[in-house]
Amino acid sequence: MQSPWILAIRSARARPGLTRTVVTLSIAPFKLEPSPQFATTSSSSFSSATLSVTNPADPAVATIMAPKAPKFEIKTPKGTRDWSGPDMVLREKIFKTITDVFKRHGGVTIDTPVFELKEILAGKYGEDSKLIYDLADQGGELCSLRYDLTVPFARYLAMNKDVTQIKRYHIAKVYRRDQPAVKKGRMREFYQCDFDIAGVYDPMIPDAEIIRIINEVFEGLGWQGKYTIKLNSRKILDGLFQVCGVPDHLIRPISSAVDKLDKMPWADVRKEMVDEKGLAPEAADKIGQYVVLKGQRDLLEKLQKDEALAANPSMQQGFSDMELLFTYLEAFGALHTVSFDLSLARGLDYYTGVIYEVVTEGSAPEIPASEEAKEQISKKKKGGKPGDQEEDRSDDPTLGIGSVAAGGRYDNLVGMFSGKTQVPCVGISFGIDRIFSIIQASQKKKERRNEVDVFVMAFGGGKDFTGLLKERSQVCARLWDAGIKAEFLYKVKPKLQNQFKAAEAGGVPFALILGEDELAQGKAKLKEMGLPEDHPLKEGELISMDNLIEEVQARLARKQQLDSITQQAEGLKVVDGIKGEDVKAAAEAVQPAE
Amino acid sequence: MQSPWILAIRSARARPGLTRTVVTLSIAPFKLEPSPQFATTSSSSFSSATLSVTNPADPAVATIMAPKAPKFEIKTPKGTRDWSGPDMVLREKIFKTITDVFKRHGGVTIDTPVFELKEILAGKYGEDSKLIYDLADQGGELCSLRYDLTVPFARYLAMNKDVTQIKRYHIAKVYRRDQPAVKKGRMREFYQCDFDIAGVYDPMIPDAEIIRIINEVFEGLGWQGKYTIKLNSRKILDGLFQVCGVPDHLIRPISSAVDKLDKMPWADVRKEMVDEKGLAPEAADKIGQYVVLKGQRDLLEKLQKDEALAANPSMQQGFSDMELLFTYLEAFGALHTVSFDLSLARGLDYYTGVIYEVVTEGSAPEIPASEEAKEQISKKKKGGKPGDQEEDRSDDPTLGIGSVAAGGRYDNLVGMFSGKTQVPCVGISFGIDRIFSIIQASQKKKERRNEVDVFVMAFGGGKDFTGLLKERSQVCARLWDAGIKAEFLYKVKPKLQNQFKAAEAGGVPFALILGEDELAQGKAKLKEMGLPEDHPLKEGELISMDNLIEEVQARLARKQQLDSITQQAEGLKVVDGIKGEDVKAAAEAVQPAE
Repeated sequence: MQSPWILAIRSARARPGLTRTVVTLSIAPFKLEPSPQFATTSSSSFSSATLSVTNPADPAVATIMAPKAPKFEIKTPKGTRDWSGPDMVLREKIFKTITDVFKRHGGVTIDTPVFELKEILAGKYGEDSKLIYDLADQGGELCSLRYDLTVPFARYLAMNKDVTQIKRYHIAKVYRRDQPAVKKGRMREFYQCDFDIAGVYDPMIPDAEIIRIINEVFEGLGWQGKYTIKLNSRKILDGLFQVCGVPDHLIRPISSAVDKLDKMPWADVRKEMVDEKGLAPEAADKIGQYVVLKGQRDLLEKLQKDEALAANPSMQQGFSDMELLFTYLEAFGALHTVSFDLSLARGLDYYTGVIYEVVTEGSAPEIPASEEAKEQISKKKKGGKPGDQEEDRSDDPTLGIGSVAAGGRYDNLVGMFSGKTQVPCVGISFGIDRIFSIIQASQKKKERRNEVDVFVMAFGGGKDFTGLLKERSQVCARLWDAGIKAEFLYKVKPKLQNQFKAAEAGGVPFALILGEDELAQGKAKLKEMGLPEDHPLKEGELISMDNLIEEVQARLARKQQLDSITQQAEGLKVVDGIKGEDVKAAAEAVQPAE
Repeated sequence: MQSPWILAIRSARARPGLTRTVVTLSIAPFKLEPSPQFATTSSSSFSSATLSVTNPADPAVATIMAPKAPKFEIKTPKGTRDWSGPDMVLREKIFKTITDVFKRHGGVTIDTPVFELKEILAGKYGEDSKLIYDLADQGGELCSLRYDLTVPFARYLAMNKDVTQIKRYHIAKVYRRDQPAVKKGRMREFYQCDFDIAGVYDPMIPDAEIIRIINEVFEGLGWQGKYTIKLNSRKILDGLFQVCGVPDHLIRPISSAVDKLDKMPWADVRKEMVDEKGLAPEAADKIGQYVVLKGQRDLLEKLQKDEALAANPSMQQGFSDMELLFTYLEAFGALHTVSFDLSLARGLDYYTGVIYEVVTEGSAPEIPASEEAKEQISKKKKGGKPGDQEEDRSDDPTLGIGSVAAGGRYDNLVGMFSGKTQVPCVGISFGIDRIFSIIQASQKKKERRNEVDVFVMAFGGGKDFTGLLKERSQVCARLWDAGIKAEFLYKVKPKLQNQFKAAEAGGVPFALILGEDELAQGKAKLKEMGLPEDHPLKEGELISMDNLIEEVQARLARKQQLDSITQQAEGLKVVDGIKGEDVKAAAEAVQPAE
């Protein structure tokens, strides 16, 4: 049993007895050419401290030839990016927080294909349909990448007639051929995180629970009330437009114009209504008086006292909805972050009742766009690379991060597919990439890269030092069997220093150090990493290998408890003191895809 | 404060005071037409017991018109499916088991875009490149959907030169325009679940840890050793072919032929080698003597005694690798499920060292395909719908579920992108959809649909019964604040029976029943669902509302403990007694997408 371990040590010394073989590769289109300098080049290009490879690890690697560089730029497609390292860890934490809230409210998840039949998406997104990605026609069905998660959900409900009530959540990527602004989290491939309640219920109860869910999500993310849930109703808006004298056929176009009020001053919006959409100036002026209004119950009461509004049937329904909604929100303890805001219109056509939009500091652009500024940006755009008008807009100061969540009630969408059965729905979609940008900008401490609990090391030196690879492997296997996260250095005879560096790089909290003398006595040293110099346990504790698992588990539990107390003490001040500037500065640190 | 709650009750009675409004919708291409029967039609089409809606919930819903049925079939694209209900819950559990193992070994996750530049995928998949999905050319870059997660990982490593060592896992969907066999988990859109170790290390240590990981995954899934990790090495195969007299240019084609041995008898493989690929019959016969061999160290020792083999340099490297690998596997306690199998070749070109493939009962086809059978199937195929040759192959008896995991060492792939820097890699990819099919086939108990802990109900009747909606909302808010998963029926005056039915449908373990008399005394009834008739707590316990959270948490903790003991007692006999027939029968139950 001893001999193979000696072979291992010999192998690590470049296997002197073996002839080097060139493995022929037949992979097109790269021609592989011999490059005898490869081993040296490779070693010197490794910067990590754990990689001080003096003997090339495996002669097979050393003999593999470096191919010629490919002729194209190695990158991800425009408006997409890789996620890795601390960014990925943070994003997973955000997903976990949101998923926990969804499950707390009885949510179940569904998963739909990333592409749908082209016909399913057709006619659902109005002007934005031009942003849909199509798959190439390679024979068979014509398909498009999903543009959001709402239409696939409606298609799912229409297909599954037995599902008449569901609280579903869906966290997945959606695709829009839009102008990307990578640093602001506006991407062509981005995550949506949707929660929708489908089914016929008594009015406004699910609508209120959605707002409660929004609160729980942002409180869970540590935003401590530093966000506003803008709230309005399509019924109130439609009633308002009718009372102001907007003809029926202009109601949706005028609604779209109102929706731009968070990006444009009223003067520009009015101009669009009158000059572009042909609304009578008096009607526009009447609308202008209303859309500046914000409040909660006070605003509702004010509107109810307006005789012209109160006589409109759509308005009456809207009033009744809002009254119920405020009542339910109060019972849910979810009223404090809500702003009933008559300027909120939402772009999508399919909303039929209450609409929501969540904004926070950093959502708004630095400079509100005037017509003039827009023209300049438009000119600049035309000067871009030919055939590629959609350059990155990260540096466009008129572009904010935008809303961090949005949604509303859509009672007719499912019927568009099913033909007969209507399934009324209300839901919310969280913009994860934008939420990520904001949280990351305020983070002081970077996330750990991995979750390893114990790094198993060998201590020893001199020419008799075997490296204890067998023992490290066996100890790791024991830890893994007990469900403990553990790793060790993939080196037959590692230096202690390099093992500590690897453990520190991963932020591993405990080192288990094996030494021949200690092992002979059935013991090993367990050391908590990063203790201060004067800590009594700085040098670690000798533990019995017989009780290895219990000893490690006890220390992990104690550490977890301590960490949790520390975290509580610090508070979850994640968005404390975020200003637009902070967001911008820290957003620069987001690794851009291009 | 009383009045809005009365409004709620009035609203639930169809809001008699309000005029119905028709909301005009401008969504193309469906024309919305009035349908006064809608409310009735809609109500009668709801089958769920909780949906005994006597008053249409919201007059707005009742007035929305049913659109005409769309002209196309509402379905998911061919070879794709929705995941929902117990299937989705089971799949999430499988992901969790696998992710836990990956993290236990220090794995970190990365996320890459679902599409890559077309050039990145070009020339990586040999003949299978025809199965790549392209995006339509809508201006700008040409892109394709990813075909696997390995090439994007190599592209990521080539782009990020500072990442020289990483244990990364990636669970995501990949796309292949292949003939689907939905019931056998062979889809066009399917999940891969990859773990790869990249970096220069001492030889065979990461290769061995991958096998340990495979063991932990399948043991974690409860397969209790009922799977085989087939193992071979490209170095051994190449040496073998050289010794048997295969000319260099035929080594990869002959390797591809050997790879078909799990689907075809030797006679057919030999025929392909000699007749199609032009190999000398003597060479084929020599190969035939070796590729039937299987074993562990015994086979290695047998081959080492073969003088012709022992003289081949590639073989010597392969021997040395295998010897180390067996030694390390023994230390990891991971040798028992391994079969050193000379017939394992793996189709992909990029492997350079050890290769793995995991099979289980159900992996193999029912009938090994003979040439004749293939011809018949091919004829049948040609008779299919014109323009759609890729019909579903679920009923093709020559098609098994196939391997449930596969991988190997690929030391050159990163260099194909980076041009200079090589990052040697070894990894494994788990076929989640196939694993799902097998586990689902053996499942006796369906998974719960949601994770709700407490269903909050109102008890009462008669015309004075308010429904306690405010109280239910407030109690839920308290439970949510404490992180307890809770829901209630979205009905102002719900029947107790319907509330119990809803709780049972979701498998909710506890009911918290509010009654006016009990509430007046500061109490409510907490009842565990599903207790046997003679259980002392069958009727529930009165608890103090002051200690609501503590009372609920204590019972949840107790129940969780009991469930965990029960589960241990039952054992994790997930794949016990699975036969091909069981898999087939239960696979019928998998909700197919088409």
